[in-house]
Amino acid sequence: MKFASFRHQGKDSFGLVTGEQVIDLGHAGAGSLKQYLARGGAARAQQDAEQGRALAIAEVQFLPVIPDPEKILCVGINYLSHVKETGRELPKHPMIFARFADSQTGHLQPIIRPHASEKLDFEGELAVVIGRKARHVKAAEALDYVAGYACYNDGSVRDWQKHTIQFIPGKNFPQTGGFGPWLVTPDEAGDLSQLSLVTRLNGTVVQEARTDDLIFPIPALIEYCSTFTELNPGDVIITGTTGGVGAFREPPLWMKPGDVVEVEISGLGKLVNPVAQEA
Amino acid sequence: MKFASFRHQGKDSFGLVTGEQVIDLGHAGAGSLKQYLARGGAARAQQDAEQGRALAIAEVQFLPVIPDPEKILCVGINYLSHVKETGRELPKHPMIFARFADSQTGHLQPIIRPHASEKLDFEGELAVVIGRKARHVKAAEALDYVAGYACYNDGSVRDWQKHTIQFIPGKNFPQTGGFGPWLVTPDEAGDLSQLSLVTRLNGTVVQEARTDDLIFPIPALIEYCSTFTELNPGDVIITGTTGGVGAFREPPLWMKPGDVVEVEISGLGKLVNPVAQEA
Repeated sequence: MKFASFRHQGKDSFGLVTGEQVIDLGHAGAGSLKQYLARGGAARAQQDAEQGRALAIAEVQFLPVIPDPEKILCVGINYLSHVKETGRELPKHPMIFARFADSQTGHLQPIIRPHASEKLDFEGELAVVIGRKARHVKAAEALDYVAGYACYNDGSVRDWQKHTIQFIPGKNFPQTGGFGPWLVTPDEAGDLSQLSLVTRLNGTVVQEARTDDLIFPIPALIEYCSTFTELNPGDVIITGTTGGVGAFREPPLWMKPGDVVEVEISGLGKLVNPVAQEA
Repeated sequence: MKFASFRHQGKDSFGLVTGEQVIDLGHAGAGSLKQYLARGGAARAQQDAEQGRALAIAEVQFLPVIPDPEKILCVGINYLSHVKETGRELPKHPMIFARFADSQTGHLQPIIRPHASEKLDFEGELAVVIGRKARHVKAAEALDYVAGYACYNDGSVRDWQKHTIQFIPGKNFPQTGGFGPWLVTPDEAGDLSQLSLVTRLNGTVVQEARTDDLIFPIPALIEYCSTFTELNPGDVIITGTTGGVGAFREPPLWMKPGDVVEVEISGLGKLVNPVAQEA
């Protein structure tokens, strides 16, 4: 199944995506996809959908897959090819930083270049959405705690990311992180170690990866993160980006207003965002 | 005025602290101190208190001053004396990392040493609570956006903080960050550049600072943070710690179960936390 969060006629809701329609599940007693997941909604979604209103996908405005996660944990330097690109050593532990919920933007909504910088970079990533409370979870059981997967563009303002050694400022400008188009449940996502990820800027491929290049695979990330914090339904782990980011190109390649950036992952769909200047 | 968040007879609420009493403001239409601040409650608190029930302070269980901030922005390396201690260079920008809300604990509640590590360290800090939406705020106007101030113990699991260059894991173990006892409004907090801060472990002074030693004072921090993210009522900026932390002592000084740690700031009160082992 595929779940999307969306706005329709000024009201935020969420639903089940089927072909060119999304079946509104907002009647089912949960105010958001996060709440719906927390209440085990995925197990009864087909049933709930029977009472739901069908909307044409073209009619809805996509919101970030989870618009209101409590925790967005991002992994840095988690692809072998990206480690080589940055000249860093192979890490012993996952590198974890964080985004706030309002740094996100939905499918087909703009990624915003702030007034503060022109160094706006793309990072195509695979996002994991947690489905139930996870603390002290071992890697072997970790996938039982996953609600599904989605594409993420961990948009980064590079100069602000590098003001100090802590990445937070450059990773949290409003509406810089694309998250969409929808959540794909594990049964439909395919073999997690064999997904292919492509980032395109204005149609040109700028990043290509396969998830078998991940240094810390998803189960290891869930084990690590659930050791230092409690993960809850709707929390997001963004698993890191691969080689090809704009900052390491010569000359650097920044996203600018008018551009269109895409992150496509096999089995999960294609996240598309235009780039716009901060108003 | 002083505002505290607390639990009483199993119910979470907040109120106005007066001497040995706290006047419950839970009747005033806001579910939390964060909401109350967002609705401009501070301006009518004395009036609301006339209808509030008076509780003995000894009867209530303190919660973190703001139990549910959306954003907790922490500043690293912001006292000259701490910069000298760590051997780092004087920073050009504030170093910002983040805590999640569930990493906090209230006054008199335990700070929890996790199973994962014995390297649990104290960091006495001055916390700033935002009172109204702040984006692109200049330093000169920044204090207009402050609801008040409190003591914070930015409890840190040092080995997890240093797994990689990103501090997040070591700063987010559950119930490691003491925040209390209450919020003191700006009119009562005194001259912000002249506050004195003392951290004590089992009665022994381990950190001493004056806020005139801050490299980036509070207005500069609000300007910087509000440039990369929107600050909202209840958001917290923890302004950094001074010299004396346990990690840089020889031998290192870690907090252990049975210890009592205090952070006292002139004009703001004294935050006291026992240390307990994770269950």
